[in-house]
Amino acid sequence: MQKLKVSIIGSTGYAGKELVKILIHHKEVELVHLVSSSCAGKNIAEIFPEFLNKLDKKLISLNLNVVSQDSDLVFTALPHTISMNVVPELLKKGVKVIDLSADYRIKDPAVYKEWYEKEHNQISKGLLSEAVYGLPEIYLNKIKDAPLVANPGCYPTSIILGIAPLLKHHFVEPEGIIIDSKSGASGAGKKLSLGLHFAECNENFKAYKVVKHNHIPEVEQELSSIYFGGDDNKQTQQGAVIKVCFTPHLLPINRGILSTCYLTLKESKEEEEVLEIYQKFYQKAPFVRIFEPPNLPEIKFVTGTNYCDIGFTIDERVGKIKVISVIDNLLKGAAGQAVQNMNIMSGFSETEGIN
Amino acid sequence: MQKLKVSIIGSTGYAGKELVKILIHHKEVELVHLVSSSCAGKNIAEIFPEFLNKLDKKLISLNLNVVSQDSDLVFTALPHTISMNVVPELLKKGVKVIDLSADYRIKDPAVYKEWYEKEHNQISKGLLSEAVYGLPEIYLNKIKDAPLVANPGCYPTSIILGIAPLLKHHFVEPEGIIIDSKSGASGAGKKLSLGLHFAECNENFKAYKVVKHNHIPEVEQELSSIYFGGDDNKQTQQGAVIKVCFTPHLLPINRGILSTCYLTLKESKEEEEVLEIYQKFYQKAPFVRIFEPPNLPEIKFVTGTNYCDIGFTIDERVGKIKVISVIDNLLKGAAGQAVQNMNIMSGFSETEGIN
Amino acid sequence: MQKLKVSIIGSTGYAGKELVKILIHHKEVELVHLVSSSCAGKNIAEIFPEFLNKLDKKLISLNLNVVSQDSDLVFTALPHTISMNVVPELLKKGVKVIDLSADYRIKDPAVYKEWYEKEHNQISKGLLSEAVYGLPEIYLNKIKDAPLVANPGCYPTSIILGIAPLLKHHFVEPEGIIIDSKSGASGAGKKLSLGLHFAECNENFKAYKVVKHNHIPEVEQELSSIYFGGDDNKQTQQGAVIKVCFTPHLLPINRGILSTCYLTLKESKEEEEVLEIYQKFYQKAPFVRIFEPPNLPEIKFVTGTNYCDIGFTIDERVGKIKVISVIDNLLKGAAGQAVQNMNIMSGFSETEGIN
Amino acid sequence: MQKLKVSIIGSTGYAGKELVKILIHHKEVELVHLVSSSCAGKNIAEIFPEFLNKLDKKLISLNLNVVSQDSDLVFTALPHTISMNVVPELLKKGVKVIDLSADYRIKDPAVYKEWYEKEHNQISKGLLSEAVYGLPEIYLNKIKDAPLVANPGCYPTSIILGIAPLLKHHFVEPEGIIIDSKSGASGAGKKLSLGLHFAECNENFKAYKVVKHNHIPEVEQELSSIYFGGDDNKQTQQGAVIKVCFTPHLLPINRGILSTCYLTLKESKEEEEVLEIYQKFYQKAPFVRIFEPPNLPEIKFVTGTNYCDIGFTIDERVGKIKVISVIDNLLKGAAGQAVQNMNIMSGFSETEGIN
Repeated sequence: MQKLKVSIIGSTGYAGKELVKILIHHKEVELVHLVSSSCAGKNIAEIFPEFLNKLDKKLISLNLNVVSQDSDLVFTALPHTISMNVVPELLKKGVKVIDLSADYRIKDPAVYKEWYEKEHNQISKGLLSEAVYGLPEIYLNKIKDAPLVANPGCYPTSIILGIAPLLKHHFVEPEGIIIDSKSGASGAGKKLSLGLHFAECNENFKAYKVVKHNHIPEVEQELSSIYFGGDDNKQTQQGAVIKVCFTPHLLPINRGILSTCYLTLKESKEEEEVLEIYQKFYQKAPFVRIFEPPNLPEIKFVTGTNYCDIGFTIDERVGKIKVISVIDNLLKGAAGQAVQNMNIMSGFSETEGIN
Repeated sequence: MQKLKVSIIGSTGYAGKELVKILIHHKEVELVHLVSSSCAGKNIAEIFPEFLNKLDKKLISLNLNVVSQDSDLVFTALPHTISMNVVPELLKKGVKVIDLSADYRIKDPAVYKEWYEKEHNQISKGLLSEAVYGLPEIYLNKIKDAPLVANPGCYPTSIILGIAPLLKHHFVEPEGIIIDSKSGASGAGKKLSLGLHFAECNENFKAYKVVKHNHIPEVEQELSSIYFGGDDNKQTQQGAVIKVCFTPHLLPINRGILSTCYLTLKESKEEEEVLEIYQKFYQKAPFVRIFEPPNLPEIKFVTGTNYCDIGFTIDERVGKIKVISVIDNLLKGAAGQAVQNMNIMSGFSETEGIN
Repeated sequence: MQKLKVSIIGSTGYAGKELVKILIHHKEVELVHLVSSSCAGKNIAEIFPEFLNKLDKKLISLNLNVVSQDSDLVFTALPHTISMNVVPELLKKGVKVIDLSADYRIKDPAVYKEWYEKEHNQISKGLLSEAVYGLPEIYLNKIKDAPLVANPGCYPTSIILGIAPLLKHHFVEPEGIIIDSKSGASGAGKKLSLGLHFAECNENFKAYKVVKHNHIPEVEQELSSIYFGGDDNKQTQQGAVIKVCFTPHLLPINRGILSTCYLTLKESKEEEEVLEIYQKFYQKAPFVRIFEPPNLPEIKFVTGTNYCDIGFTIDERVGKIKVISVIDNLLKGAAGQAVQNMNIMSGFSETEGIN
Repeated sequence: MQKLKVSIIGSTGYAGKELVKILIHHKEVELVHLVSSSCAGKNIAEIFPEFLNKLDKKLISLNLNVVSQDSDLVFTALPHTISMNVVPELLKKGVKVIDLSADYRIKDPAVYKEWYEKEHNQISKGLLSEAVYGLPEIYLNKIKDAPLVANPGCYPTSIILGIAPLLKHHFVEPEGIIIDSKSGASGAGKKLSLGLHFAECNENFKAYKVVKHNHIPEVEQELSSIYFGGDDNKQTQQGAVIKVCFTPHLLPINRGILSTCYLTLKESKEEEEVLEIYQKFYQKAPFVRIFEPPNLPEIKFVTGTNYCDIGFTIDERVGKIKVISVIDNLLKGAAGQAVQNMNIMSGFSETEGIN
């Protein structure tokens, strides 16, 4: 059988590297072009000796004609506001695109502009409504036929999956949601900065971007859709009406996100009832594992996997439910989920290459 | 001048060791007895080679007669429910006591029994009203004359100091307070357990005791007193009426706590107004540093110090104020604060030995 | 095709857990029994939530009859001196055994007794000559037909593979070999000890067992065989005559060994000559990667893989060659190599399940 | 009494910051100018919030006139090859200088040029013979009167102190010395690089600069002097004749160096004999602690201190002695030792401010 011809634009960032690691073992895929503006001309095994004896391939600089001509599907693993410069061209040439940036996640271009300080051009604006938010546990059917999938952010993946069932079933108030998230250092990417210099980051812990982290609009859009829209196949038009109070923190570990979510129960619930809606919501989701109370997930349970592990506890004294959700930020939070989307878009087994 | 004769019961736990490290350089103190049931007979430098050339002293097993006869003041660094077996005897012999356990922190013995599953005997019950909660920034004057100081827990120190000014000035609602705390591994003590085995704890992060951590009653007692009592010099009698939703997490670092506190503003406030009440509240507190927005404290700023660093941000979108408070759990959260209390009780400079 | 029926005795130690992780994805294997004396009766996913949704299997206590009856091949991942209690019985019942302990690695029972302070019984003594030292890069052909493979120790794997070509070709003196090795904490196993308590091990580094580490006899036996024996297919009878000066150190990381080996060149060599003998020696070894100078391997290049990465540099000023060899101590240093041996013994592709 | 007026050029690197931390608590010192070209104009507490409430001082750009006029002594904490641009001018103006770079450590300018690829000008060449190598345990008397002290490198401090007694007493051969050193990441300084990016350095371990690390000539000069010179007060003229085989490695911890030194015993020695020469050699050295076998130092014993802890073991099987030496690279390996030198040069207690 003909393999799917796949290229990656942005192959040497942390997400790009994970994509390569997955795809060289993916049975249905032929890896065609690895694009890297910073390392073009070198062999990928020079940049990452991990690939010695596994992949012998030269990194190339970006040529959209070549890439689109030779590829059925392209992953764009570029920074926010840069992806939108290449995605429309790829789509126009008939290539399917899974974009790992935020550029096509937010349905309302005005909201994107507010949080990312950049405006879409007309073509990209037009693509926003076509793009499918690539969270397979919510949008499985839409992803199947999508030419453009906007792969979710790492924090949003952990948060949305963590609390979607509670919102869907209106077990909790849509107000007063507090999300306290902690991410490993690879989440900040490969760009050098003093805060990520080993001797500065190690043995430290801090909050950052405490008010305006740009993953917030994505979370609010999706939570609102789940709560008010109520239908997996259509998204609410009325704009984001759920607002969350979100604080990201930097963990001195390489990989993993743990989000602690605090929600107010509308009325007292038994753990069994809550467990039931979670299990039902995710019964067909191969990458979500629900922990039965009092067990709770830890980051290490998911490191190196595409799982999202979710546990919860009811704090009756204060009428809150706490949800703990963990993912590997580079897999379920980026490259793993991107491949999961590719599998769905291409009719492969959803778990191929990422199990 | 005659030095203060000081002994430590429980010298080889993490807090005990820090006490020794501080006291060997304290100008006003003569270190008399180091009690350690597990290591009696050995020199402390055998247990901790850090003390080579610095302290040449044999650890002894507990003899309350000897200890009380030779000491003016004793630090009891014993586990909860064990301290109450030795504190009354020491006090009876006229020795001042700073107890690092929780045994005399909770005013209401019924509350203690509920959270610690042990009942005080009659004598200890009687001591509860005499004991002063050793948070100098709140109870400075009472500590001066106290024969028994109950040294606060590590999480409570970070939390209470972090949000006391907001509650004192009724800037925030007393309901719906959410505290998300993260502690380094030394906070769990020296007792071996699989969860603290290096290869299990490293590169991991998890929540634990998500509903019933026994620092909660202490936090609620003090926050209620601050909010409803309104007077630094008297404590409210009406019992804890503020309830907090508290989640502790285990950080893969040695030392430090960061508490992220979420509170609901009663009405919109400017940052300047909030900053002002913080600065005023702590103007005479040598170990509290207030960060001006948008600066926020990080754990490394306080590692190895007795500081509590506090910063905040107002999240106008959701009407919340977030407070970030950091301490070194073994210093301001244990041994450093205990020495600060000793300094106050003994008329020394508050910062002696811990600056 | 019929799958190979495999059981593991000692499934919940670090090596045992890695074996399970590999074997559940191994195409040719059916995992039959997971024996764990400490956790018998529990499901393995209760002990390791990583296995949720991946493996639903109850751990059983040891019953040699049941295990040998149901299995074609058994991995024994038991402590030194314990394995010898079960291996002979398994072999007698016709089961192939890959033993991860040291019990059958040392050909001379007197040497074993000297270093491990335990004597083999008569049956085990008899097995010593039959057992094949399971380093496939050296003993590929003997492993194919072996009923009992003694899986090498982690340090010895890194050391022997690192310097075998130099000894084989007599490029270096057999005297004065110095090996300075550094291992991650999982190498010390799962047994609790204060030195492996997170707050003791983290941000620390130390040498340990500086004179008599029990991996030394294994290293010396094999290096002597390579240097004096000269033939892959027969082992020297004359006893170990190469002696090494070996120092292991404990790294505050989870996984990985780096061995820095210092050898004296018999005569000056060009890097190209050295590179050539390395490449030739390992040309058919799928899990050894040779780095061309000046590139050198780092632990992270092999973490999570079965590779042994080797680099070298010639220090002309002092007439030495330095070899740097890295492995993942739980994979090429234990479970991965064990599966590699299983693949060879069973006629599977050598890389199946561990690529 | 008049305090010593001290300035620091290069105040915001890791060594400079440690100098500031020490000097603000030093009883005999008045901190005058903090020079930082990169941060001039800012308050040091803006750069390092650790100094909040402790030091309120503006960083200035370099003005040699101002600095030399206002200072009795200046620490130059600048990169190699840069220090030589400012040191001569400071000396000319009558200011004492402790230079933390390598620029005045190597007596022979040709050797410096070979390893550092830069030539001294005539004035600096002239200073080389006047400069005293600031290892107080070896050069105490010369340091007392020195106008210019060349503060030793971090690796050399650990190595030279570790093995000086063995060489001095000719217990070991001067040939075949092998030094395997491991350093925490702060040793690489504050300059950003991918290898020190948290996610690259954490959970990793590697050798680097395996042949030509520029600390080698300094080590060889001093070891030769000790072995062949035989007199603490005069240095051998005959050039470095001891050559060492040195390999530095990068530890994923913030601070600390452990050097494992392998030397060949000239004849068999008892541990007691060796212990005795160590204890005698360092009997007046307040910052060297000798461990009695079988105890060995670990990095954490010296973290945050100015100690060099030394232990050894005799490996009779191979006729070698192994010495383990540990220091905090930023203290005894840089700022602490610099202050120790200042104390000696100024007639203060040798341990003032660093005990």
